[in-house]
Amino acid sequence: MQYPSKLIEEAVNEISKLPGIGKKTALRLALHLLKQEENSTLDLSSALINLRQRTKYCKICHIISDSEDCTCESIRKDSSLLCVVEDTPDVIAIQNTAQFYGYFHVLGGIISPIEGIGPNDLNIDSLVDRIKNSEGTIKEVILALSPTMEGDTTSFYIAKKLNPFNIKISTIARGVPIGGELEYTDEITLGRSIAQRLIFDITSD
Amino acid sequence: MQYPSKLIEEAVNEISKLPGIGKKTALRLALHLLKQEENSTLDLSSALINLRQRTKYCKICHIISDSEDCTCESIRKDSSLLCVVEDTPDVIAIQNTAQFYGYFHVLGGIISPIEGIGPNDLNIDSLVDRIKNSEGTIKEVILALSPTMEGDTTSFYIAKKLNPFNIKISTIARGVPIGGELEYTDEITLGRSIAQRLIFDITSD
Repeated sequence: MQYPSKLIEEAVNEISKLPGIGKKTALRLALHLLKQEENSTLDLSSALINLRQRTKYCKICHIISDSEDCTCESIRKDSSLLCVVEDTPDVIAIQNTAQFYGYFHVLGGIISPIEGIGPNDLNIDSLVDRIKNSEGTIKEVILALSPTMEGDTTSFYIAKKLNPFNIKISTIARGVPIGGELEYTDEITLGRSIAQRLIFDITSD
Repeated sequence: MQYPSKLIEEAVNEISKLPGIGKKTALRLALHLLKQEENSTLDLSSALINLRQRTKYCKICHIISDSEDCTCESIRKDSSLLCVVEDTPDVIAIQNTAQFYGYFHVLGGIISPIEGIGPNDLNIDSLVDRIKNSEGTIKEVILALSPTMEGDTTSFYIAKKLNPFNIKISTIARGVPIGGELEYTDEITLGRSIAQRLIFDITSD
């Protein structure tokens, strides 16, 4: 593409390095910024720089945080539950369900031989240490990884690592998504939801 | 949404102000930047600030430019042709066709009563002045506006304004898009393409 201005070209090149944003969208975003107040561009830029330069990771949970000290204690209620997730968006998604009040442990990825990510690239050793040092406080580890081959491999690896400790290891339920149509559910999910059927409890809500 | 970090929250809020980007995409982009080298964020931010603070508009064509002086002369060949477009992306799109070597005139929008944009908000007076001052150099004005009601209204308004001058006024051809299937073309487009049919010229390519 030929751009009428070097500045536009540079902005489009930088914006289109972001995932899922092509040159046309980048141009649209750049022209949008040009039509806004100058402050909106300055606010965006400083938010990005602050994010990149000042973000820290909690030393214990590895969640993105404003400080390296674990601040989870102040908001968590149940220290017997530890939920293992792939990355920060999963923490946010689980928090938004308001169904979990335990602690998190962020792996920072999942085992993926194709992408060259092995167990040592993830926060698995620190998870094992965390269980070891909890002296029995942590009673259950919930493996909340994506139901993919990589996720299952990672779950299996972690479950084996945690086997020597006397704790319950669970995984999030897989089945027909709520609001989904049964006839459009893929066979593997539907098959599993039948194999792992639950007692219908009329007393629960 | 609850975010584990204020910095993430601020970045997500700023990014999601961009058109077509929601909170989830903004979070994905923010986390992407966190995984990249610090320089990629700095480059992006400075490109945006440079764009916003240093971009100028050509005094004559109103194209986004690196300077206010018209630099079109150095790249244009045919000073008898002037193409009127809504905004800068249209200039880029037409340039990319490599079918037009005349000059451009950017209106900066189209007449839209619903959005409260009238003729005086657009660069129409300067277009009239440009024709007037060209002393017959400009022989044809091509109205290359979108084939919408607003585009047609704007074309009609400009055509009336330019009527006193002895110049040819044309509009880009409308019809079946190349590569499109005839049976899926809407009736208005297809009807117009029949009404405005062209002589099939076996000598042209």
